[in-house]
Amino acid sequence: MTASRYDVLGIGNAIVDVIARAEDDFLVAQGMHKGGMALIDEARAQAIYAAMGPAVEASGGSAANTIVGVASFGGRAAFVGKVKDDELGKTFAHDIRAARVAFDTKPATGGPSTARCYIMVTPDGERTMNTYLGAAQDLTPADIDEAQIAAAEVVYLEGYLWDPPQAKEAFVKAATIAHKNGRDVALTLSDAFCVDRYRDEFLDLIRKGTVDIVFANEHELRSLYQTADFDSGARALRLDAKLGVVTRSEKGCVVISRDAVESVPAERVEQVADVTGAGDLFAAGFLVGLARGKDHRTAARLGGLAAAEVIQHIGARPAVSLKARAAENGLAV
Amino acid sequence: MTASRYDVLGIGNAIVDVIARAEDDFLVAQGMHKGGMALIDEARAQAIYAAMGPAVEASGGSAANTIVGVASFGGRAAFVGKVKDDELGKTFAHDIRAARVAFDTKPATGGPSTARCYIMVTPDGERTMNTYLGAAQDLTPADIDEAQIAAAEVVYLEGYLWDPPQAKEAFVKAATIAHKNGRDVALTLSDAFCVDRYRDEFLDLIRKGTVDIVFANEHELRSLYQTADFDSGARALRLDAKLGVVTRSEKGCVVISRDAVESVPAERVEQVADVTGAGDLFAAGFLVGLARGKDHRTAARLGGLAAAEVIQHIGARPAVSLKARAAENGLAV
Repeated sequence: MTASRYDVLGIGNAIVDVIARAEDDFLVAQGMHKGGMALIDEARAQAIYAAMGPAVEASGGSAANTIVGVASFGGRAAFVGKVKDDELGKTFAHDIRAARVAFDTKPATGGPSTARCYIMVTPDGERTMNTYLGAAQDLTPADIDEAQIAAAEVVYLEGYLWDPPQAKEAFVKAATIAHKNGRDVALTLSDAFCVDRYRDEFLDLIRKGTVDIVFANEHELRSLYQTADFDSGARALRLDAKLGVVTRSEKGCVVISRDAVESVPAERVEQVADVTGAGDLFAAGFLVGLARGKDHRTAARLGGLAAAEVIQHIGARPAVSLKARAAENGLAV
Repeated sequence: MTASRYDVLGIGNAIVDVIARAEDDFLVAQGMHKGGMALIDEARAQAIYAAMGPAVEASGGSAANTIVGVASFGGRAAFVGKVKDDELGKTFAHDIRAARVAFDTKPATGGPSTARCYIMVTPDGERTMNTYLGAAQDLTPADIDEAQIAAAEVVYLEGYLWDPPQAKEAFVKAATIAHKNGRDVALTLSDAFCVDRYRDEFLDLIRKGTVDIVFANEHELRSLYQTADFDSGARALRLDAKLGVVTRSEKGCVVISRDAVESVPAERVEQVADVTGAGDLFAAGFLVGLARGKDHRTAARLGGLAAAEVIQHIGARPAVSLKARAAENGLAV
């Protein structure tokens, strides 16, 4: 195993978020499933945008948010994802590079525009997402650079990558390279509906060892094993995965390995403004901890710190240095 | 005087803000004057964007922010300003219309792109602005619709309109129509450097009565009358303007009319996150109060409420309903 250039390399959909506050009534009128992520086409995107309130735009994308979190902790980070060479694509590229993340994926010069996610934030801080995948659909195995993947301690993949047609091939190519080089592969299950769409494939990835580390929240875990009972889900994951990390919102998280099942409490949060990015940033802290050789409990606490920061403001990327936040909490990384 | 359709109609530069946090060192390295607004060309815009940190995009523009504030108070509001029919132009148009503001100015189909303001927010909450005027430069008298101007109780103009070459002609055309219809014309001096560029013209507008109501902060007032002494500036404004409203940050404001000079204290603010839009939103509250027949003190308190709301979060437009905020404070409008 050669020396690494990156602590974490993420592969995901490159998306710009369009974020607006909305009342629950708006979700009902628009037929949106609160708390979920729906895939939409261009026509629906235009209809939603026309109906929604004043918005702010900020770079997003689940794995991209995680990778920016890794960089904010001072981790060495890279991202692979597809934008178009349009205004939003330039915005996405600027923001991720300005966060000191290596981002070298060639933008598409034709085809659909850069992906957008229309996010409604209700007064309780919950977010409801509508994703137009656009150019993100055009990520292919050709976008996976062998040398770059080989140079990352952990390759982190989002389950949402199963939605674009060729991205899963890119995903498998990256996992194969990583393992050939003695690296770990992590997967987030992304969303309970996403698990519903690809349950058998996800289980296959985990059981065959294509994926070493699985991130999920309670809903995703229950969906994966089609059980209403958290403990049965956790037991099943323990048998299937090398390492499982299940987040439970204000109840903290459970780290599940062959050796132990550890519960780690959540950070205290004053007021939840917008839960967008909570899971993404939890993964950032956990992965940084892992890459830096911390124990699972410490990694989970780093994840909790990052998640607590991101839900106290609008937007899915950290507003402060997570490295500084970790140091303030006696968790230097 | 016919019945009005709008409480306030604003004319200003239609701009999308690109907002990033920055340390004071960054301003020094970039040769930026802290707290000011600098006009930049496209090349400088690209250089600043390449150097600045991860950003969020949100519709802005001084008078546009004011008009959105008026609408948030429940006021009937219209805006006139020039975007291009590009992505950012569509974003600007969406956001202002979604705020229930009438916005009918035809977008430019060629020429420079929609205006952008690169805003650095330092840890003290101060903002430093760099404006690429782009399509906003192409506002001309042809964009002023006589019937629409005639239908507004108050026409509100930003001093920044003196920067684009033909906008001042649009400004004068609008003021003439307003007065012919018995309406009031208000002007914000915008920025001390802007006053420096156009001092004689601004004084001329005020003294000739082209403008009835003048909004300024302390720095702008001092620059207008080239005095270090606030009281001399206030006395001079009292002689020149029908009504002057001078904001003094945490010291509140002073309302200066021929009859009286009244000081009104500021609202208490927990923590200043970003002062962008403070003056714009103060004007919104004051103008709504005026249009609804409130006394000057009440109008000033509405202005203070709106300013206090906007400086407690990132971005220059209200994040909550100002109508509700006013009602909570016993100031139903």
